[in-house]
Amino acid sequence: MKAVIMAGGQGTRFWPASRESRPKQFLQIADSGTLLQETVARLGPLLGREDVYVVCSERYLPLVAEQLEPFPRDQVIVEPMARSTAACAGLAACYLKQRFPEEMMVMLPADHVIRDVKEFHETLRAGEKLGREGWLVSFGIEPSHPATGYGYLRPGEHLGEFAGRPAYKVEQFTEKPDRARAAQFLEEGNYYWNSGMFLFSVERILSEIDLRMPRLGQALAEVEQSWGYPDRLKEIFSPLESTSIDFGVMEKSERIAMLPSDPGWSDVGNWKALEEILGVDGQGVASNGPQLNVDSRDCVLYTSGGKLVVLVGVRDLVVVDTEDALLVCSKDRTEEVRKVVESLKNKDLKEYT
Amino acid sequence: MKAVIMAGGQGTRFWPASRESRPKQFLQIADSGTLLQETVARLGPLLGREDVYVVCSERYLPLVAEQLEPFPRDQVIVEPMARSTAACAGLAACYLKQRFPEEMMVMLPADHVIRDVKEFHETLRAGEKLGREGWLVSFGIEPSHPATGYGYLRPGEHLGEFAGRPAYKVEQFTEKPDRARAAQFLEEGNYYWNSGMFLFSVERILSEIDLRMPRLGQALAEVEQSWGYPDRLKEIFSPLESTSIDFGVMEKSERIAMLPSDPGWSDVGNWKALEEILGVDGQGVASNGPQLNVDSRDCVLYTSGGKLVVLVGVRDLVVVDTEDALLVCSKDRTEEVRKVVESLKNKDLKEYT
Repeated sequence: MKAVIMAGGQGTRFWPASRESRPKQFLQIADSGTLLQETVARLGPLLGREDVYVVCSERYLPLVAEQLEPFPRDQVIVEPMARSTAACAGLAACYLKQRFPEEMMVMLPADHVIRDVKEFHETLRAGEKLGREGWLVSFGIEPSHPATGYGYLRPGEHLGEFAGRPAYKVEQFTEKPDRARAAQFLEEGNYYWNSGMFLFSVERILSEIDLRMPRLGQALAEVEQSWGYPDRLKEIFSPLESTSIDFGVMEKSERIAMLPSDPGWSDVGNWKALEEILGVDGQGVASNGPQLNVDSRDCVLYTSGGKLVVLVGVRDLVVVDTEDALLVCSKDRTEEVRKVVESLKNKDLKEYT
Repeated sequence: MKAVIMAGGQGTRFWPASRESRPKQFLQIADSGTLLQETVARLGPLLGREDVYVVCSERYLPLVAEQLEPFPRDQVIVEPMARSTAACAGLAACYLKQRFPEEMMVMLPADHVIRDVKEFHETLRAGEKLGREGWLVSFGIEPSHPATGYGYLRPGEHLGEFAGRPAYKVEQFTEKPDRARAAQFLEEGNYYWNSGMFLFSVERILSEIDLRMPRLGQALAEVEQSWGYPDRLKEIFSPLESTSIDFGVMEKSERIAMLPSDPGWSDVGNWKALEEILGVDGQGVASNGPQLNVDSRDCVLYTSGGKLVVLVGVRDLVVVDTEDALLVCSKDRTEEVRKVVESLKNKDLKEYT
């Protein structure tokens, strides 16, 4: 099995720490390494380094090289243009098909946190077996609250045990429901969050793309003839729509299976996620550096260089400090940070993005 | 007339910008110069440089020299120890007495802001005339709210016009009343805030100190014999209590006069004062640098180096950023910043004070 790490994201919800020049996956958020480094590291010893591939844009080649050193250049797949995860998966499958046409591949976001590596490995082992039977494998995380940022999976038919773990056909895949619908799912029970990790055979994902996204399938057929010609690859990618693999394939396919898993997963979706990742103190404050708290509660603090943060009489804030920009955000509005980055671009403050 | 600028304060309520190594008066808060530089500059052309004296501790001699360059060393009066404003005024009077025993002196805090220099000069001219008649002159600012951090003056008997301005005997001087009393003063009307600037003759302040603060008077008599002997001066100052000139002299003396004045004065008492000094925008935000405001109101932002501050969905915050420390404080609790500095000292975080 090969792992394909998707490192092409912009991570704008992690502004101002995440910048165009160094997006979230290249930052050290909680652990001793950057999110990308941790994503690669946690694959061992299940997979060797030679089985790990990274997809990113040309711009981030130096960061990948620096952070994963030594990492063979032919295990980095350069996206001609960012065209979301369906094109990313298709491109990676095309690339792997050249040498491993029968191989299984697991697609992993470069910017997630997983705490229980043993559980993660066991799930991947089960996923590999399930994938070899022709399924597109998703991993279902038990939902803790009616989040609107995730896809929801409803398991149906029991497909048997794989490496000792139960697998289910996915009866319904609902990408990013609204709040009311998400709440209804939780009330009904038997729904899972889609983790954003997928596992399938090279052959299967390419045939599903041909079936569900024929324009992308056509583009990938041209890609196969164009390796080594970056300008041609750009021409092929340029007219493609940005469609996630969730919308483009998973919601529509009839060959989706699910393995329930509890690997201590977080998609580190926005600054609020640091509460879980860093943990909170007795006053509900999560911080990556020194702090002094006077009568304050339930804040998230993220600074660089060990800066001291002093809070006096405040609550429910996210405070993120970097060298040239400082964010102070109500904790229930962390999703809006993405829009801040758009605003900065429109307001001639592009230097801060 | 001589001006004596009191530059010995710690400015702890302006932490983290104000540090022991560089207190508030040595910072550029609003104008093009530091508060000390502006305090000196606004005396001209009423007074020449040769009429301006600065009192500070030995530690701040290099800062004074750097900021007022060129400034003759014999116009800097070194406080042997910080013992509050009564001792400071007495020391300065002793110093001036050596060369100008009949002279008038005006005591000016180094860390105030005054916007209307013309009004300020006119008031000082009137004050000089009033002082020459033996009064201890205070300057009364019309109160805008029941502040508890100021002294309150109640004018009584009209003493006549001085340089075209009415002067009054002060009938009652109440230093820092509680909130209820301050509110009562405002309701009654005919109360003024004491500006913290005082004007008197060298002779008069020394005789008032002898009368009202005999221990300080005794110490000053010894000081007169000890110029040029820093260790001896320290010995004399060391046992003195720290008493403000307001408590020690002004509240008790029967020779206090007041000139009402409206020179656009602010004592820059805490971070909230920046609302008036910097001015606020349409969303009530006062800032000394670039900001992007998403749905936020009524904040005070102070950063160094032109850092961009982005606010999302917050209100009534004070945010102060420096190289190694960041303060986020509820706007109605800015007075507590002083206690933060004490806490830091007690918590082994003295490096940040």
